[in-house]
Amino acid sequence: MATEPPETDAADALADRAEQLAYLSDASGALAWDQRVMMPEGGAPARGKQLSALSTVTHDLLTDDEVGAWLDALADRDLDDDQQVLSRELGRQYERADRVPSDLVGELTETQSDAQQVWEQAKADSDFDSFAPVLDDLRDLHLERASHIDDSADPYEVLFEDGEPYLPLERVEEIFDTLREHLIPLIEELKASDTEFTSPYSGEYDDDTQMALCREIVDHLDYDWDRGRLDTAPHPFMVGPQFDARITTRFAADDPLGAVMSTVHEFGHASYQHGLPDDQYGHPLGQSRSSGVHESQSRFWENHVGRTEAFWEYATPIVNEHLDGDADPREVYEAVNRIYPENKIRVEADELTYHMHIILRSDVEREFVAGDIGVEEIPGRWNDLMDEYLGVRPENDAEGCLQDIHWTGGFASFQNYTVGSVLAAQLDATMRDDLDVDGLVREGEFGPIREWLTEHVHSHGQRYTTDELIEEATGEPLTADYFVEYAEEKFGELYGV
Amino acid sequence: MATEPPETDAADALADRAEQLAYLSDASGALAWDQRVMMPEGGAPARGKQLSALSTVTHDLLTDDEVGAWLDALADRDLDDDQQVLSRELGRQYERADRVPSDLVGELTETQSDAQQVWEQAKADSDFDSFAPVLDDLRDLHLERASHIDDSADPYEVLFEDGEPYLPLERVEEIFDTLREHLIPLIEELKASDTEFTSPYSGEYDDDTQMALCREIVDHLDYDWDRGRLDTAPHPFMVGPQFDARITTRFAADDPLGAVMSTVHEFGHASYQHGLPDDQYGHPLGQSRSSGVHESQSRFWENHVGRTEAFWEYATPIVNEHLDGDADPREVYEAVNRIYPENKIRVEADELTYHMHIILRSDVEREFVAGDIGVEEIPGRWNDLMDEYLGVRPENDAEGCLQDIHWTGGFASFQNYTVGSVLAAQLDATMRDDLDVDGLVREGEFGPIREWLTEHVHSHGQRYTTDELIEEATGEPLTADYFVEYAEEKFGELYGV
Repeated sequence: MATEPPETDAADALADRAEQLAYLSDASGALAWDQRVMMPEGGAPARGKQLSALSTVTHDLLTDDEVGAWLDALADRDLDDDQQVLSRELGRQYERADRVPSDLVGELTETQSDAQQVWEQAKADSDFDSFAPVLDDLRDLHLERASHIDDSADPYEVLFEDGEPYLPLERVEEIFDTLREHLIPLIEELKASDTEFTSPYSGEYDDDTQMALCREIVDHLDYDWDRGRLDTAPHPFMVGPQFDARITTRFAADDPLGAVMSTVHEFGHASYQHGLPDDQYGHPLGQSRSSGVHESQSRFWENHVGRTEAFWEYATPIVNEHLDGDADPREVYEAVNRIYPENKIRVEADELTYHMHIILRSDVEREFVAGDIGVEEIPGRWNDLMDEYLGVRPENDAEGCLQDIHWTGGFASFQNYTVGSVLAAQLDATMRDDLDVDGLVREGEFGPIREWLTEHVHSHGQRYTTDELIEEATGEPLTADYFVEYAEEKFGELYGV
Repeated sequence: MATEPPETDAADALADRAEQLAYLSDASGALAWDQRVMMPEGGAPARGKQLSALSTVTHDLLTDDEVGAWLDALADRDLDDDQQVLSRELGRQYERADRVPSDLVGELTETQSDAQQVWEQAKADSDFDSFAPVLDDLRDLHLERASHIDDSADPYEVLFEDGEPYLPLERVEEIFDTLREHLIPLIEELKASDTEFTSPYSGEYDDDTQMALCREIVDHLDYDWDRGRLDTAPHPFMVGPQFDARITTRFAADDPLGAVMSTVHEFGHASYQHGLPDDQYGHPLGQSRSSGVHESQSRFWENHVGRTEAFWEYATPIVNEHLDGDADPREVYEAVNRIYPENKIRVEADELTYHMHIILRSDVEREFVAGDIGVEEIPGRWNDLMDEYLGVRPENDAEGCLQDIHWTGGFASFQNYTVGSVLAAQLDATMRDDLDVDGLVREGEFGPIREWLTEHVHSHGQRYTTDELIEEATGEPLTADYFVEYAEEKFGELYGV
């Protein structure tokens, strides 16, 4: 028998390792779901240790010298397409993990964990000064980490590549420029209009009623219950691989439409997972592309299906039945598209002003990471930009720069929310060349829409880089033009501006 | 600064590894809970891969050469008590894992997985012949594994030590002899008596009603809801560490008392976990002793609390309220103690005949593992012993030797169910020297009982070996005398024999 060629061995070994890493990562995901949805409160100390042990073994398996050797062995070989994807994706993960000394990883993890506690108290006290020192430490540690990864690059770009490796930050900044240019005047016009929308469902609705409604809505969207669940969580999220993509929602007694929109959003995330190829589970080809692309799927279903007039022509009778109401579709359509720029809290923002919150955070953190502003200047800079973008000024740090926990987890990750919305609009525009989207939605025929997204996005896994995937799916690079057009047209019509 | 002495390093390193192994094992436990309680059916392939990846990394961390070196370094040192426990327990785990070649582990795992499928079909078809070849393979693989672990010992003893390392099999066999001697005539007497007990709750009760009842019962037992949950599962079980010990139960519409007894049983398991020291989480001192000792806690609460007349004097009004009944305590006491030797199914057996099922299985598998009977002789031997022990004869393999899945998981593990019952009776007898158990139970004062068990059993973790722990707690080695005395007294009074 002939000896197997070494390139085959290295590729197989690397594929096995990639699978093991993916399985362990999904194990962590399932434990995190349990922690947020099912775990009794007292379980927290044990779960923290379990997740940390998993994270350590995963890191060790990834930075194993063997992985470096397999990657080196593959570097000069002729690889088939699937092997190239494997080599590119594992190579990137390996380098980013291996180049950072484990002492630094440990210090960063510990500081992040401390910072979460400090942030919680600082937010409760609305006292940025008590958070500033640890935020400064975090910035320094992230800069050190970035310099280990790539000493020659802009550290903020290196950090941005953690979440979105294949979309140049420059492109994202151009998109933000376009959005500033168009959204700020549009929001001003909407503020100036006399139009006011209110929800036709003005009662108080208990959790069981809202849950039954949300279940029926995702039922109509054909959510695969055999591969998922719907539960409640304080901050809704989706987690799990293609075989088990679970969604969560939350209820406020006076806002059942909010619960529906949140559920449809998470359904969108799950539909991406469900569209990944089963037989590539564990391989990069069986995994979603990036957080920005993932967000495009949730935003697509939330905004380009769930916030359309066609959808409410279909879904209003369902909601009326559950909530014992008699709203007409136009009323619901208007209610779910209400714009309220006076809001200062990102997670409560409407579809439009939301992006100004994102751009503001990106501006502030980029300046802070670059050293253009000191930590003590953050609150003032935040409030100035809020005034500039939305015409409101936070009255304290809790409703200003302390509102989000994200900086305790890292920098340069907010952008992907807006990348998702912009990409969703671009996908919607492309899909409309192939499908009568409104006609299908009006009839509750969501299958062809999901299939289009699976064909053009989900089924590829990580075969393409993000910019390649966007070009493959839409025929052009990521652009904000479609989002601007969609927003101007929809809100222009709704608000008569 | 002085260099740290090497024995400290090895002990610390070993303790860290022990913790990491425990955390990963608990992570697997939480994933298994999810799989049996929450997971959508389609999630099975992914969960299987996640659990298998966890099992591989755990095995690799345990059999790491460093572990062997740390153990060697500790072998000749003066260790403090806690370090001795660590060295003994990790040493045992390491040796049992390290001595078995990984190829054999892989083959065994794969054969076990295949065997489960074959068993399911064979049971459905009631066709032992189709299961026999894989059962034969399993026996051979287990014999091979036992020979790697200890070539000079009786392989069946080696296998028994998987689950109960510190209780000589010989002692267990003596206990079985005592039980055969006393239980067989006692069961015959009960069969001959005219007494028949029926449940006073003869309606059909829905799941919600039964769940509310079970919740209130464990509430009265002071189950710590902050560190646990109660859900349903097809086969009730308990899982999780001291911070998060979850229990499950199941419902049959016509048997609410069965659900209560099953819930109290699992509560007993959880009370052991809850009694382990928090600050030793991950160390052997923070883990339960063995499956036999664990079963003693579930059987204690199920039988020595839940099946006493005193308990029903306290709990009958609670059940009456939930089930809209008017039973008196004596009726319920009689109903939960009904003996029905005509039953051929272990999992449906009563408190007394249950042990004959266990002894039967141990007899058959011991003969099979020793080669005294061939695989094809198992059904006949099973049926003969069932006739000898209980005076009934299975009519087919499905209600005979195919009824339990256990052999697909391993041999020599059934004994621990009976060890648990026998130890529960021994603990009960000892406790009665210190506490007025019946008086406390009658008043619903369960705290002192739980505290006694925590002090004498739970709080020690794995400090003592099993036989040491039993001596510490009860003043003598494990004996069946107390169980026999308890059974003869209770059933003698109930059945008037």
